[in-house]
Amino acid sequence: MASIKPSVPKGTRDFSPTEMVRRNYIFDTIKNVFRKYGYQQIETPSMENLSTLTGKYGDEGDKLIFKILNSGDYWSDAENRKLKDESFNYNSKSLLPIISEKALRYDLTVPFARYVVQHQNEITFPFKRFQVQPVWRADRPQKGRYREFYQCDADVVGSDSLLNEAEFVLIYDEALSTLGLKDFTIKINNRKILSGIAEIIDKADNIIDLTVAIDKLDKIGLDGVIKELMERGFSADDIEKIKPVILLEGTNEQKLESLRLALINSDTGLKGCDEIETVFNYIANCQLITANLELDITLARGLNYYTGAIFEVKTNEVAMGSIGGGGRYDDLTGMFGLKGLTGVGISFGADRIYDVMEELNLFPAETAQSTQLLICCFDKEGEKFGFPIIQELRKQGVSAELYPAGAKLKKQLDYANGKHIPYVIIIGSEEIESGLLTLKNMETGVQEKRTVEQIIAAKGKL
Amino acid sequence: MASIKPSVPKGTRDFSPTEMVRRNYIFDTIKNVFRKYGYQQIETPSMENLSTLTGKYGDEGDKLIFKILNSGDYWSDAENRKLKDESFNYNSKSLLPIISEKALRYDLTVPFARYVVQHQNEITFPFKRFQVQPVWRADRPQKGRYREFYQCDADVVGSDSLLNEAEFVLIYDEALSTLGLKDFTIKINNRKILSGIAEIIDKADNIIDLTVAIDKLDKIGLDGVIKELMERGFSADDIEKIKPVILLEGTNEQKLESLRLALINSDTGLKGCDEIETVFNYIANCQLITANLELDITLARGLNYYTGAIFEVKTNEVAMGSIGGGGRYDDLTGMFGLKGLTGVGISFGADRIYDVMEELNLFPAETAQSTQLLICCFDKEGEKFGFPIIQELRKQGVSAELYPAGAKLKKQLDYANGKHIPYVIIIGSEEIESGLLTLKNMETGVQEKRTVEQIIAAKGKL
Repeated sequence: MASIKPSVPKGTRDFSPTEMVRRNYIFDTIKNVFRKYGYQQIETPSMENLSTLTGKYGDEGDKLIFKILNSGDYWSDAENRKLKDESFNYNSKSLLPIISEKALRYDLTVPFARYVVQHQNEITFPFKRFQVQPVWRADRPQKGRYREFYQCDADVVGSDSLLNEAEFVLIYDEALSTLGLKDFTIKINNRKILSGIAEIIDKADNIIDLTVAIDKLDKIGLDGVIKELMERGFSADDIEKIKPVILLEGTNEQKLESLRLALINSDTGLKGCDEIETVFNYIANCQLITANLELDITLARGLNYYTGAIFEVKTNEVAMGSIGGGGRYDDLTGMFGLKGLTGVGISFGADRIYDVMEELNLFPAETAQSTQLLICCFDKEGEKFGFPIIQELRKQGVSAELYPAGAKLKKQLDYANGKHIPYVIIIGSEEIESGLLTLKNMETGVQEKRTVEQIIAAKGKL
Repeated sequence: MASIKPSVPKGTRDFSPTEMVRRNYIFDTIKNVFRKYGYQQIETPSMENLSTLTGKYGDEGDKLIFKILNSGDYWSDAENRKLKDESFNYNSKSLLPIISEKALRYDLTVPFARYVVQHQNEITFPFKRFQVQPVWRADRPQKGRYREFYQCDADVVGSDSLLNEAEFVLIYDEALSTLGLKDFTIKINNRKILSGIAEIIDKADNIIDLTVAIDKLDKIGLDGVIKELMERGFSADDIEKIKPVILLEGTNEQKLESLRLALINSDTGLKGCDEIETVFNYIANCQLITANLELDITLARGLNYYTGAIFEVKTNEVAMGSIGGGGRYDDLTGMFGLKGLTGVGISFGADRIYDVMEELNLFPAETAQSTQLLICCFDKEGEKFGFPIIQELRKQGVSAELYPAGAKLKKQLDYANGKHIPYVIIIGSEEIESGLLTLKNMETGVQEKRTVEQIIAAKGKL
């Protein structure tokens, strides 16, 4: 019987041993920085009640949530419904609440809000949590966009101090520097500045239109932005007023100064400037390792949501979308009935960071290797001789393997090469007799005779 | 508006910061042992094609697989089907393949088999892999049984050497000893011995009935087993023949000797005895740290599946089901068209190990703590003074936090207690002036005056 070659669902991926080591390297580095700043890990279930997720991501988002079919005889519930209400029409939307009650996590933010409300009496506020788990979206898969991918988030809720914003800049700086990135920019903006800009042209209600257009400056240039603003109903007069703001230049200090002049008639706008300045002042007290910190008022991501600081991180070494982002939101838990809890959070784009590191060759050599030493033998005698040696090496913390007796030496050496094992010990009858083993460096090919004691004593160099 | 208290779907769990630290401690310990023995981590997607999973777990298993509803207009597919075939009846079973193409992973074994077949040309065999990921089952939730839980598996495929079986015994021993378990038993059996027992009473076809009954010896005693064997159609004569085998006593060597006598007429049975002896001989060459290793021919878990060794691990310190298990299977990848690849694997029951460790109080004290030091201050001045200090401590690898200015000292100390932070620095105006900070040990309550340099120099003791 010919069988079909097995595959994974589109938009999902297997991770090979090498990929896993490298992914762990990224996640562990970021997690350790989170911990150093007092963030604690939580995990939430992969599935949430559908009612927890629905309506939180807009109509488009709702469509992209993966729903789980009720187990058991889900169809009888639909039939009962039809019996009770003859006018009930079967269609994808009307059936959904009947045949599905659960769905897969779409992001980490809504489950976190649910967690905070559900566990509010056990939590010590301000609550600084991080979470690294997969999320699922029924998006059309394409290069770099997956239906299952990990998010890597840190948030603090219950503190309005801008110290938190400053620390997130430091966290980005330390984590990405530790991973070896040498040139990246942390962009910061503030929703209140964007509100201020809309206010000074009396278009507070059109802030979304305004920011959507401004956000494209990088891609379509000033002329493109002006064209788009006209199309969205802004007058030539409006555009004249905000042009200096869009084209803001100079150092962060100079930009803030120009902004304050432009926003002089907007209390909200000036408050935004003060907030950004406070963050800059905190950071002026320390030293950024690598990051460039840049006030960028064209930055408007997730605007519906953010109420204060807005962050985005971009590498300047390779062409790549943002590798991180976040911001402050004032009423995250309100959707679950707990009002007045402010929060601020950031996210690392682990898949993109992986691609950047691969392109720049930043993964340490150890991330290719797993086992440090392989013992090869020719027969049962050699295997018996080698087994206590391998156990002693493991006891000393060396990751080591004994190739089971019976295979040709070539196959065993191929195995070592395939797994990037740097050292091999070969045990033949001569070695058993003399007690002098052959230690082969698989990279250089150099072979040396060593006693077991010498090999164990040199374990640090394996 | 009164809002409903948010909750998680039944059978699923949130993990709090303390639970996460403890779960990570268990997983990291086990993973490190896997790595030391040359096992490499992989991950597979949470969702598999439904066709990959269906039919692999029996009819009961198929029902317990969580299916994912097709995204988009799934219902129009069902209607089109009805249009093409008027006799098509809507029911839960007939609709399933039309409205669902994907399902959540039910275990790690079938996805692993799929992985091996799909990536066979990239894999270096024997392939030693480990995998620690959640699985989902639509089981009725009850104490200790969840709908989402982690499995923690190691398998090697492509090697029939019994060295692998021996190393799994050592892996169990090392991992559970490292976690602090002081009295546990690794039970080993061999499918061929069970086949041999069925053979000597000419009931090879009834091996399942036989082993299901024998497996209950612990629970229902010899009389219960005999009763059940009679009910399942075994004659008094049969039972007389196998009674000595069921009641096997003495050391592992004595048991093997008795078994060989009883199974003298079964080549398969004798081969099983040889295999077990070979595993024992490997292990006799090393030293088990803690584990008792016990030949237990009543052990029959997963029999449909296993063809050689069968493992199960039980703690003797608290009443608890098995905390680990596994065995050899001869044709794992056959279901995906790759024949003749033998494998052997084990699994750790992480949730049960967690419960055992909690009951025995085995988690290290550090697993309760996260941040090592908190700086408390009274105002913006103190915060400004404290910020470079906290950054210097973090640079030295200390996990430290600065409580944002503006909260009462009591609130800040409550925060330290809530997060089990062992040391607190209090910065008031006097401290800023003198440069001598107050370092408070939160456990003893002792306060001492220290310079910043002294605190940083003593970081190892924090």
